[in-house]
Formats: sequence, structure tokens, C-alpha cells
Amino acid sequence: MSNEKSNLDRFRIFVLRLGHRPKRDKRVTTHVMLAARALGAVKVFYTGERDLKVEEKICEVTERWGGSFEVEYVNSWRSLIREWKDMGGEVIHLTMYGLPIQSVIDDIRNSPRDKLIVVGGAKVPSEVFKLADWNVSITQQPHSEVSALAIFLHELFMGKELERRFEGAKLKIIPQSRGKLVVREEQPNR
Amino acid sequence: MSNEKSNLDRFRIFVLRLGHRPKRDKRVTTHVMLAARALGAVKVFYTGERDLKVEEKICEVTERWGGSFEVEYVNSWRSLIREWKDMGGEVIHLTMYGLPIQSVIDDIRNSPRDKLIVVGGAKVPSEVFKLADWNVSITQQPHSEVSALAIFLHELFMGKELERRFEGAKLKIIPQSRGKLVVREEQPNR
Repeated sequence: MSNEKSNLDRFRIFVLRLGHRPKRDKRVTTHVMLAARALGAVKVFYTGERDLKVEEKICEVTERWGGSFEVEYVNSWRSLIREWKDMGGEVIHLTMYGLPIQSVIDDIRNSPRDKLIVVGGAKVPSEVFKLADWNVSITQQPHSEVSALAIFLHELFMGKELERRFEGAKLKIIPQSRGKLVVREEQPNR
Repeated sequence: MSNEKSNLDRFRIFVLRLGHRPKRDKRVTTHVMLAARALGAVKVFYTGERDLKVEEKICEVTERWGGSFEVEYVNSWRSLIREWKDMGGEVIHLTMYGLPIQSVIDDIRNSPRDKLIVVGGAKVPSEVFKLADWNVSITQQPHSEVSALAIFLHELFMGKELERRFEGAKLKIIPQSRGKLVVREEQPNR
């Protein structure tokens, strides 16, 4: 953990997924959360309607594949963002309308503050644009909160997130040029 | 276009999305396709069930936001992949079981062949792993075909895809630190 901290955890990354609608967004929200987890975030918050199935899915993945990622439903994005800022955290909203990532990522990376990365959601209220310290675009084209988050985290961590270890994993993949090799890790008794 | 060609189009990128199921995958498939378009692919193929709504959605985006991205439904991924290889193209399958992107991306980038990037899909048949020239993983953790594709293209193009221009766009975003600014482009009569 200590090596990992020096590389990736100079600040901690939290993600806020806005406006989840269980029927429509189930899979995209799951993908946002799994991408957040795999690419170095420590926790995801979400607003909209609470969805226990999505929460279970993420917990299952963490249980099986390691690390200590958390999911939390919050009622109000406004309260969360305000609290976050009051506690000294930085808020980064990913939106196609924001400043190009390539022009702001160095500044964001150089700031040691914990970061809350906000991704929409259907209609993002204009207040989110105002409350954010940074509104950041990953191209000025429509694509996906999943791809935007992925490229943002990849740039933020300068690719080091790809080497991240997930402690306590039950399953571990041994990379292969063809086919699949998964090993089940021996767990110490706890 | 000629500048763009020299930077991004030394090879062309096509994406193949496997096993689309309209009900379940509508939004994730749409996100895969939009990410492919925004991040420099020229065309996406998909298999599974044909879905005119998804095709329309992508065409609408291209119509509005520019460029010449195409979508095509194909019956058989096997025939497409074989044809692709017969014509001298390279096949890259993104899978959490494959070789880490950081260890293979230089080789892939240095090859001038057109590339077909294959993403699942529910269950990816083992034949895909065999037919692919490269099986590539973006972390050895489960996340999303959208985030995997995004990071792959971002690495492949070394970030230059973020500067890509989309010719003939009706709408164009002017990046803002706060708020939204979209301009409607004057189109020459055609």
C-alpha cells in the first residue's frame, strides 16, 4: 500500500454520478462505477434514484477482484459538493462544454487536493457548472461519461493507474496473448 | 484533412462491437459507438441483433457534430474478421485477459496496417481470441468496453485524437470554464 500511495494516492479520487435512473441507466452507471474503481478512484457517490442492484454488483466485483472501493447513494449532490468544498476538496465536472483536458490537466494534477469528479446524468443542472472548480471536456464531441471518465483518470494518473494492485483479490488474471488464465488467490484466514 | 491525415490517419481505425442485444445494450452500444467516433475511428461494425434506433442515433450525431463516421450491421463477425485479415488488416481484441496495453501499444502503433478493434459483448467466443492478432487488456480488472476502448484509442493516437476536427459540423462547442457556448456553423450551399 505504501508504494501505491506514493504513486497514485498523493490525492484521492472520488466520483459523483448524477441523476441515476435505475431502468434506463443501470448498465451505464455500473460501467461508470467499474471504470472508476479499475482506474484508481476510491469511492463513488451517486444521486437520482437509489439502486440496490447496482450497489450489490459493484460490491460483488470488489469482493472478488480486490481493493476497497465503496459506493454510496446520496440524496443531494448540492450538499455533497458544498461539504466537499468546505473540507478543502476540489470539484471537477466532466462536460463536453468545459475546457479541453489537454490545457488543464497539468494544473489539476499538480494540486494535491482530493478530487471529486462529477459526471452526468441526463440533464446536468447549471449550478453544477458554477460550483465546480473545473469544467473539463474530453473532446468537444458527444460521447460517454464512461469514456470521458476513463481518459480523465488515465491522464490524471499518467498511466500509472494501469499498474495498480488490488489487495485481497480472490481472482487474479495472468495476462495471455491468447485465451484466459485466471488464478484463485490463496487467502490468509482472517 | 491533409494535416489530420498525417497525424491520425497513418492507419484507419474500425471498431467491431460484438453481440448487441437491443433491449439490454442499447445505451452501452451507443456509448461504444460515440466514443469510437469522438476518439478517431472512421467506422463501427456491430453484430448481434440489428438495431435501427441505435444506427439512427449515431447518424444524427454525425450529421449534427460533423465528420463522416459510419455504422454498419454485419451478420457474421467471423466473416468480417477473416475478410479483414485477408485484406491485410490487423485485428485487436480488447479483453481483460489479454496482454497489458502498456507492453504492446508501441508495437501496435508502429504497425501501419488498418486496425479493427473488437469489443464484447456478453460472451466473447474463444475463436475471437484466436483470430485476433492482439488480445489487449486495459488493466486486469473488470470495467467497461467503453472505458477500455477510450483508453486504447487515446494511447494509440497519443492524445492527438483530442485535437481532431470534425468537418461539416452544424454545431460547434467553444470551450468555457463555466457554462455552455455552442455556435451554429454557417454551411456552404451544397
